[in-house]
Amino acid sequence: MIKTPTLIIDERQCRSNIQLMVDKASRHGIELRPHFKTHQSLKIGEWFKEAGVTKITVSSLTMAMYFSKEWRNIFVAFPTNINEIKTINTLAAQLSLHLSVENLESINFLDQHLKHPVNIRIQVDLGYHRTGIDSRNSNLINAILRKIDDSDLLTFIGFYAHSGHTYQCKTKEAILSIHAKSLKQLSNLKQLFPFAKISLGDTPACSVAEDFTGVDEIRPGNFVFYDLMQEQIGSCSISQIAVALACPIVAIHKDRSELVIYGGGVHFSKDQLEDQEGIIYGRVVEQAEHGWGQVIPGMYVSRLSQEHGIVTVPKDRIADYSIGDHLLILPVHSCMTANLMKGYQTLKGKLLEKYY
Amino acid sequence: MIKTPTLIIDERQCRSNIQLMVDKASRHGIELRPHFKTHQSLKIGEWFKEAGVTKITVSSLTMAMYFSKEWRNIFVAFPTNINEIKTINTLAAQLSLHLSVENLESINFLDQHLKHPVNIRIQVDLGYHRTGIDSRNSNLINAILRKIDDSDLLTFIGFYAHSGHTYQCKTKEAILSIHAKSLKQLSNLKQLFPFAKISLGDTPACSVAEDFTGVDEIRPGNFVFYDLMQEQIGSCSISQIAVALACPIVAIHKDRSELVIYGGGVHFSKDQLEDQEGIIYGRVVEQAEHGWGQVIPGMYVSRLSQEHGIVTVPKDRIADYSIGDHLLILPVHSCMTANLMKGYQTLKGKLLEKYY
Repeated sequence: MIKTPTLIIDERQCRSNIQLMVDKASRHGIELRPHFKTHQSLKIGEWFKEAGVTKITVSSLTMAMYFSKEWRNIFVAFPTNINEIKTINTLAAQLSLHLSVENLESINFLDQHLKHPVNIRIQVDLGYHRTGIDSRNSNLINAILRKIDDSDLLTFIGFYAHSGHTYQCKTKEAILSIHAKSLKQLSNLKQLFPFAKISLGDTPACSVAEDFTGVDEIRPGNFVFYDLMQEQIGSCSISQIAVALACPIVAIHKDRSELVIYGGGVHFSKDQLEDQEGIIYGRVVEQAEHGWGQVIPGMYVSRLSQEHGIVTVPKDRIADYSIGDHLLILPVHSCMTANLMKGYQTLKGKLLEKYY
Repeated sequence: MIKTPTLIIDERQCRSNIQLMVDKASRHGIELRPHFKTHQSLKIGEWFKEAGVTKITVSSLTMAMYFSKEWRNIFVAFPTNINEIKTINTLAAQLSLHLSVENLESINFLDQHLKHPVNIRIQVDLGYHRTGIDSRNSNLINAILRKIDDSDLLTFIGFYAHSGHTYQCKTKEAILSIHAKSLKQLSNLKQLFPFAKISLGDTPACSVAEDFTGVDEIRPGNFVFYDLMQEQIGSCSISQIAVALACPIVAIHKDRSELVIYGGGVHFSKDQLEDQEGIIYGRVVEQAEHGWGQVIPGMYVSRLSQEHGIVTVPKDRIADYSIGDHLLILPVHSCMTANLMKGYQTLKGKLLEKYY
């Protein structure tokens, strides 16, 4: 029985998502350094290890500390937060730490305060405009490289980019068009700096592209679970989504064909997507003996408050549900849902710990 | 120095918000049963105790368990989740537990499985249409009341409502118009069931209304901190907002007058509001010696991803900021931000624990 909102993981599907990406990287002769910000779990990390992965990406130094228990090569793909220099030194003392730099202030600070060797990657902006150096700004890149060269503890590894604008796509063609532009910009960079490794990192492009010319490493994260947003973008099919939130039904409103579930913004997150039914926060799937099946047409989370979720139900199905039953709901954005939950429960009922 | 995103609380302002609501309830001769889902902290709960509050509201049984360490009268203002009967019995054994019921299935289940006395409140829907019984549905109300009457362990307390549609308001007048309608519906209910206590619970109406005719109890929650959404609705002024997220600056993009902060959707939540600058996720305030001052015009969080926040900065101020500085940012929805954070830090640097 599902007592409270519970994040269910389909281990078989999750391992299959991992294997598919491992195989793809291997087929293209590139390294896979998966982003662990999505699952944030040492236990799920072990499934990656079993598939041969040895290097990972995280999005904060705190998360790097959590994974340092079991991983010896960690890239923090986030602009270096110099205020956490103590944590940086702790990590650098015990493992191969890769940091992201995109300005002179940070590289100067690291040069002055580091006590152990650190690998540096320069973030370049390929058009997403979240952060990173414009890939054509050779002056700044060269100034950072000179500083790295002069330092005993800094080693330059290469450039990395996150083409987050693929998350705005609605078709594979749109993803591939952005990806082709990214490859072109990275190839120009590689010509100027032939010794630099090139790392690329978004789940949409890593999922659908088959051209990785000039790329040495990929860093997708979300693919481990996928979600409705990735399905809408075109990165995955519904059947590849490996997590569902199980939520007890606490009220039934037959007059408006709605169910109220225990499961709100503090469980799903407020990430939303717009499709033919308007704004939705999750889709209900058919329950099967070993997991779940297809999405139930016309049945979705239409509103969320802190702990309440409102589920719109097709009129001919509302009588099928009773108070105390639970629904299985695919999340819109699995990274944010997983971040809010304290752990996972496998289909066999085993609990998997995560960073919390 | 702010190392990682830190939720700063202005204790003086927070206590003043509490006192103002305590005084208002007292002035109107009604009980204040504040909703603790906003702060989720035993420590902040003590400030309520010091102001004379003895009864509280929470939004889940898990939260009731957390507060049961220090509170003896707790109302779980959420449709009773029968799957948590074990927790219900644990709580009912040790304190005065109030549960919400809005259907016969739940009241029958409680009648059969309770081991200790429980107080029942019936949720009525005054137009928000999230959940609750239509206040004109006397048949269902009477059926539930009969069941309560027949039970040794159940005691009927009264009706409660949450007029969440006030959160859509943009002016005090709009809030007061909804509030007046709520009062009218509740007064009709009181005529039919004169023995029932009437409890009302939204921060906007509790903040701006001065007419509480027929109301016995109020249950606002958000007022303890307030936030930008409440300011936009008209419930509070900017100076009443008692929490701000402190976020280190990790990158500066002068060309587009943007700062990148360590502070993303996993800290703020993705709650957003639309105002003259479009969609925003937070507003930056001036830093003062003892807390913070006014909002800086034209400076706001314009985008959020998992750990990154992008802050738009007025062109003439971008040169004022350096990497490693921190910004103080008022949240759009303090309940969701507080829920994501592990605790609070007072202006004097003291850490306050919370439920996590």
